[in-house]
Amino acid sequence: MLAALGMSAEPHFKRCPGVWKMLMAAVCVALLSGLQAQDHPGQVSIILLGATGDLARKYLWQGLFHLYLEEVGKGHHFRFHGTALTSTEQGQEAIAKVLESLSCPGDMASGHCAELKAQFQQLSEYRRLKTPEDYLALSKDIEAQVEHEGLRETGRIFYLSVPPFSYVDIARNINSSCRPGPSAWLRVVLEKPFGHDLHSAQQLAAELGSFFREEEMYRVDHYLGKQVVAQILPFRDQNRAALDGLWNRHHVERVEIVMKETLDAEGRTSFYEEYGVIRDVLQNHLTEVLTLVAMELPVNTSSPEAVLQHKLQAFQALRGLQRHSAVLGQYQAYSGQVRRELQKPDNFHSLTPTFAGILVHIDNLRWEGVPFILMSGKALDERVSYVRILFKNQAFCVQSEKHWVAAQSRCLPRQIIFYIGHGELDSPAVLVSRNLFRPTLPSASWKEVEGQPGLRLFGLPLSDYYAYSPVREQDAYSLLISHIFHCRKDSFVTTENLLASWVFWTPLLDSLAHEVPRFYPGGAENGQLLDFEFSGSHLSFSQLLPEQLVPGPDSAPLPSDFQVLTAKYRDSPLISAWPEELIARLAGDIEAAAVRAVRRFGEFHLALSGGSSPVALFQQLAAGHYSFPWAHTHLWLVDERCVPLWDPESNFQGLQTHLLQHVRVPHYNVHPMPVHRRQRLCAEEDQGAQAYAEEISALVTNGSFDLVLLGMGTDGHTASLFPQSPAGLDGEQLVVLTTSPSSPHQRMSLSLPLINRARKVAVLVMGRMKREIAMLVSRVGHEPKKWPISGVLPDSGQLVWYMDYDAFLG
Amino acid sequence: MLAALGMSAEPHFKRCPGVWKMLMAAVCVALLSGLQAQDHPGQVSIILLGATGDLARKYLWQGLFHLYLEEVGKGHHFRFHGTALTSTEQGQEAIAKVLESLSCPGDMASGHCAELKAQFQQLSEYRRLKTPEDYLALSKDIEAQVEHEGLRETGRIFYLSVPPFSYVDIARNINSSCRPGPSAWLRVVLEKPFGHDLHSAQQLAAELGSFFREEEMYRVDHYLGKQVVAQILPFRDQNRAALDGLWNRHHVERVEIVMKETLDAEGRTSFYEEYGVIRDVLQNHLTEVLTLVAMELPVNTSSPEAVLQHKLQAFQALRGLQRHSAVLGQYQAYSGQVRRELQKPDNFHSLTPTFAGILVHIDNLRWEGVPFILMSGKALDERVSYVRILFKNQAFCVQSEKHWVAAQSRCLPRQIIFYIGHGELDSPAVLVSRNLFRPTLPSASWKEVEGQPGLRLFGLPLSDYYAYSPVREQDAYSLLISHIFHCRKDSFVTTENLLASWVFWTPLLDSLAHEVPRFYPGGAENGQLLDFEFSGSHLSFSQLLPEQLVPGPDSAPLPSDFQVLTAKYRDSPLISAWPEELIARLAGDIEAAAVRAVRRFGEFHLALSGGSSPVALFQQLAAGHYSFPWAHTHLWLVDERCVPLWDPESNFQGLQTHLLQHVRVPHYNVHPMPVHRRQRLCAEEDQGAQAYAEEISALVTNGSFDLVLLGMGTDGHTASLFPQSPAGLDGEQLVVLTTSPSSPHQRMSLSLPLINRARKVAVLVMGRMKREIAMLVSRVGHEPKKWPISGVLPDSGQLVWYMDYDAFLG
Repeated sequence: MLAALGMSAEPHFKRCPGVWKMLMAAVCVALLSGLQAQDHPGQVSIILLGATGDLARKYLWQGLFHLYLEEVGKGHHFRFHGTALTSTEQGQEAIAKVLESLSCPGDMASGHCAELKAQFQQLSEYRRLKTPEDYLALSKDIEAQVEHEGLRETGRIFYLSVPPFSYVDIARNINSSCRPGPSAWLRVVLEKPFGHDLHSAQQLAAELGSFFREEEMYRVDHYLGKQVVAQILPFRDQNRAALDGLWNRHHVERVEIVMKETLDAEGRTSFYEEYGVIRDVLQNHLTEVLTLVAMELPVNTSSPEAVLQHKLQAFQALRGLQRHSAVLGQYQAYSGQVRRELQKPDNFHSLTPTFAGILVHIDNLRWEGVPFILMSGKALDERVSYVRILFKNQAFCVQSEKHWVAAQSRCLPRQIIFYIGHGELDSPAVLVSRNLFRPTLPSASWKEVEGQPGLRLFGLPLSDYYAYSPVREQDAYSLLISHIFHCRKDSFVTTENLLASWVFWTPLLDSLAHEVPRFYPGGAENGQLLDFEFSGSHLSFSQLLPEQLVPGPDSAPLPSDFQVLTAKYRDSPLISAWPEELIARLAGDIEAAAVRAVRRFGEFHLALSGGSSPVALFQQLAAGHYSFPWAHTHLWLVDERCVPLWDPESNFQGLQTHLLQHVRVPHYNVHPMPVHRRQRLCAEEDQGAQAYAEEISALVTNGSFDLVLLGMGTDGHTASLFPQSPAGLDGEQLVVLTTSPSSPHQRMSLSLPLINRARKVAVLVMGRMKREIAMLVSRVGHEPKKWPISGVLPDSGQLVWYMDYDAFLG
Repeated sequence: MLAALGMSAEPHFKRCPGVWKMLMAAVCVALLSGLQAQDHPGQVSIILLGATGDLARKYLWQGLFHLYLEEVGKGHHFRFHGTALTSTEQGQEAIAKVLESLSCPGDMASGHCAELKAQFQQLSEYRRLKTPEDYLALSKDIEAQVEHEGLRETGRIFYLSVPPFSYVDIARNINSSCRPGPSAWLRVVLEKPFGHDLHSAQQLAAELGSFFREEEMYRVDHYLGKQVVAQILPFRDQNRAALDGLWNRHHVERVEIVMKETLDAEGRTSFYEEYGVIRDVLQNHLTEVLTLVAMELPVNTSSPEAVLQHKLQAFQALRGLQRHSAVLGQYQAYSGQVRRELQKPDNFHSLTPTFAGILVHIDNLRWEGVPFILMSGKALDERVSYVRILFKNQAFCVQSEKHWVAAQSRCLPRQIIFYIGHGELDSPAVLVSRNLFRPTLPSASWKEVEGQPGLRLFGLPLSDYYAYSPVREQDAYSLLISHIFHCRKDSFVTTENLLASWVFWTPLLDSLAHEVPRFYPGGAENGQLLDFEFSGSHLSFSQLLPEQLVPGPDSAPLPSDFQVLTAKYRDSPLISAWPEELIARLAGDIEAAAVRAVRRFGEFHLALSGGSSPVALFQQLAAGHYSFPWAHTHLWLVDERCVPLWDPESNFQGLQTHLLQHVRVPHYNVHPMPVHRRQRLCAEEDQGAQAYAEEISALVTNGSFDLVLLGMGTDGHTASLFPQSPAGLDGEQLVVLTTSPSSPHQRMSLSLPLINRARKVAVLVMGRMKREIAMLVSRVGHEPKKWPISGVLPDSGQLVWYMDYDAFLG
């Protein structure tokens, strides 16, 4: 097939995925099936940078040896180059020690093991790799050695187990001096952190992108190499029949993604102080797991492209995090450790969180409303990590509880747990409640866990689960190194996915930058101090702390310290309060007006302004007003920008996002302004304003809206009626086209005479920015041409001002 | 105040609520505050019909005595007339026995008790009440006695403790011969059953309504007299602060309303066989409780009008029940009992359910999505009745479970239980989880329950609840008799509420009439046989029975016994299956088309037909298609009836109810047909058809819809293109006005040429009714004037027929 496409089949076909993406599947199959019969066997060089470091000594050399054991005898030749900045002698000594300690799988005969280990040692060397010349020399040596042995070069893997600040230099050197020839491939493996926020991650990605092509980079998140994590998608795939109906908001009550540590950050504070728990664990490990659970399952889960694509779609559906999506903690000893290790003064207190609970919502039809709880922390009561999918109890068990049979009753918890590691179970495992279904797992690599009497997990005895653990435990790095060799890019973090994750996390990190975390003693002492709970999108600690209840001398007064203030403003009633109370009061007043109108007239006509202040009002109305007679409410716009209705700048769009999507107003009761007609925006000749006026006249008795909600601009404008612009201030026209001083300039607006026909007009004014104009307008008379807001004076209706303290008290 | 209104204050003001509804509150206050100071004390006569029956002997005489104890000394005079059909001697003897057995409250001195009892006995008499003359005589006697004692008559209470078939005769007699004079009130108390279904209930209500005014009738549901049930609204009222945020869909996971009995129907089958568990318990007792839990709380919960009004609103929000909203059971011995007691032949098998589980949904913003589970049965494992409100777990507890502190952890169940009676607790009680809040109950009448070590209720030890029981237990009838006297109409079932309940239950009862209930052995033996579970609105038993898995010789083949069949019809692909599979397949095909179109063009234009067949499709699309790109889908109508969009007959209304309310299509992507313009319907001069054509031209490239869904009428019509009517069959017009042979006659429709421009046309044909036309159309050529459907032949798109087996195989 390759020949038919006019390509030379060798050695290009070992490049993967390379520029011939379409061929990747075929390429990988060829690679996997072994190439023993080749005339010119290929050699792969693996260069491990930072070869004497912690990670390398603990995991990477073992992983390379594992790769060698797996692949030797399949036609590949290998060379392993451990490199570092230290001298050759020191390095050689260190490496020799590591190589001596390598182990074979338990089931390998010891003689065979010793033989292979000796071979591996012979193929491994240490060399210093520091200057551009060193890189060039390495490259020459590889070429010479390949030629000398009559081989062809297949590819080079550079594994960068080095601090991130050295990435760019090393990348430059590899690119300029150590690329293999054009017929061999290059793979560069990178370890996190990949930046500190979106900006730095973009910068790093851009720099690396100037040296390597996307398909050459393998960013490691070692969680993706954990056997249970790697099993999530295959599990979802192999149990499609059972899961298809269950894996959605109708059946899932919550998803918990948890990594608890007992250790603290002692000895690592120089790193930790820079990153904290969100960057260290949540942005990467837990987020990767989240996407594996939440993504739509590709038809072919073994296609890396499909998996990566679906993962990216999952990111797009994540609802943005806000300040209140998180709770933060810090174990009490942390600041002391930082002071000691980083020589900080005695009065230094770190704000770096060592504990975080995050509530994630996914705004698609599959997951809408299902809480995804991400939690990680140091110095907690146990070490364990897991994903727990708890299903809703949708059963009713007729007999009294004492008759329930544990493994059968549908009223006992039903859950699937991906038990990633540690904890009370002594191995990673996949657990499925017996009252759910019997799962399918590949029987060659997963075995049923043996009973452990008395062990309870997540509210149930172990015996109530179908529980499977790997036949052979394998460490994450061995698995990842094997996946690098086999081009399983779905086990790595692509640039797109990395940036998508930072796009998701950075706003939260920014908003939490100055947040004081709750202190916790550490270990079992934590008690219920860190328990948290959610209401809507809002997360908070369950326990209020005494010191948080009593505001200290420095703390700002709480909203609840104040009553709603009622007074007069421009001779009309004024209601003033802190924003939250003000919005609650206004929403309550609107509901009361609606109930009254529907009772009297069978319908309620509400005209709403756009802008940012009403957003909180819309959200309040959408969330808390169960008796609001939406089915009998007509929604009108006070004004609109001349943009298409689906433009984010459109007032209607805000109304739709924050209110309409959450309540049930009949389609025909919603009246957007016709700013967009015949593909044009607010063209006089399209008579949009006249059409809206006709619609109002046809439906609203006497053109008297039951309630008109207005705002007030810093220039005294209201609706889209602007100072020094006569349109709409008087006359017969009900709806007018106007011009705004700020973009988009063209507007459509209800006219002042129409507004003044309303039964009630509410003007909502919020924020410090409005203080000056609020002061000014309080003193001026009826001068609508200078301050259109001063022309608001209902003919026979009521006018009420709603101002927050910032705007009113200043 | 009364005098000021020009009314005589006495005796009218004792009438309650009477025609002066507005005055009722004042009237009742006057009545309650006692009238010791009146010049002409009033007398109340209480006539108990069926005075020697079971209910009377067990509860009613005691209730009357209780009333006497409460009210004597407050200025009222009483006379009690026990009546029945039996002879005076027999009756007197029976009554004397009952009167002897009456008891005083535990805290009354026995001497005082004996004295009052003697008084009560003296005021009570037996008389036969059978003929119109008997009633007339009773009336005369009362009048004579009142006059003789120098009293005024205040009112008469007739308590009908008699079989319902005698209601009408008795009512006629009371009305014609035994009404008190115009200055006294009449109250007639009725015991259930109040009909057998909506029709019979309406009939009975109409008959009673011809004799009594609404305010004269007191229909008893004795559940409303149970202390815990009567406490539900006061509890909600007194704990508003704690409950306000919790009593809604965001916090309530489920509500269970349960009445379990251990007894069976032996000895009562002649009644039970007529009624069954739904009519006996659910339609009345459990439904009353449901409304008390679900209704919006009136501002003033002690206003009977407000309570009754809000109850009625709760009924209106109930989602209609369907066949699949219920599971039914019958204890195995039942049919044998019926055969014995009702002399039925040996081969008689009753279908009357003795067990029912029902899933109720309430379609308002407070309760949407919260399952209300109603359950009752005979021959179960325990006797208990309760309402359980289980709250959602919205907490995450950081420490491992073994550290959770029971009464504090927010991760343990949080619930409120109105423990109506029986069960393991030895008194009625109100229970609130300690991890929820400390409730307020009136301390004079409710006391904390003492601990009972080892007792667990609903998954928690009793000590984990704040638990309150009545200081003095009072039976339901005593309370209700007192409420009749005090005009507390909210403790009774008004005609409106009764009919609302039957409106709710009758369609279910009809659809279940021929349903075979699941047999259960009775008692603890039932095991998990009756456990049931829900998915969406669908309820089913958790356990499949072996005999239900293997279809017997008589059983119809199950849908899953068949594969989807693909073939050709009119030279185009035909997909045929049982309805459920067919709809699933069509929905899947539409989603696939949508995903494809959005990927290629960024949008998907779908034109949908109205009618009943698409409803199942809409529901399927709304419920099961998580990846459907609704945000990029435009919805168009294929045809529309010339009625306002909010008319139930409007195709758009069906689309809105079954699809739009459940998915998020942007407002501006929904395109109803403009059949209603300028307050007129489909007037030629309003150019609605032209406007729709323009809208299509502006938004749909080349006027080619991505998918058009059509149906086929039994006359061969499709869209709203009818045989023998030329409009829309050819020519340039995209949208046309047409005339249907059936009402509403005026229609708007896409034209055949426009339909044929679509990329894909799907024709959905379902049901036996379509068999003949399907057969016919399979044979005819291109004859759109005779059979418009034969003109459907996309110019370059694809045509696919979706027919269920009933329509296709016949």
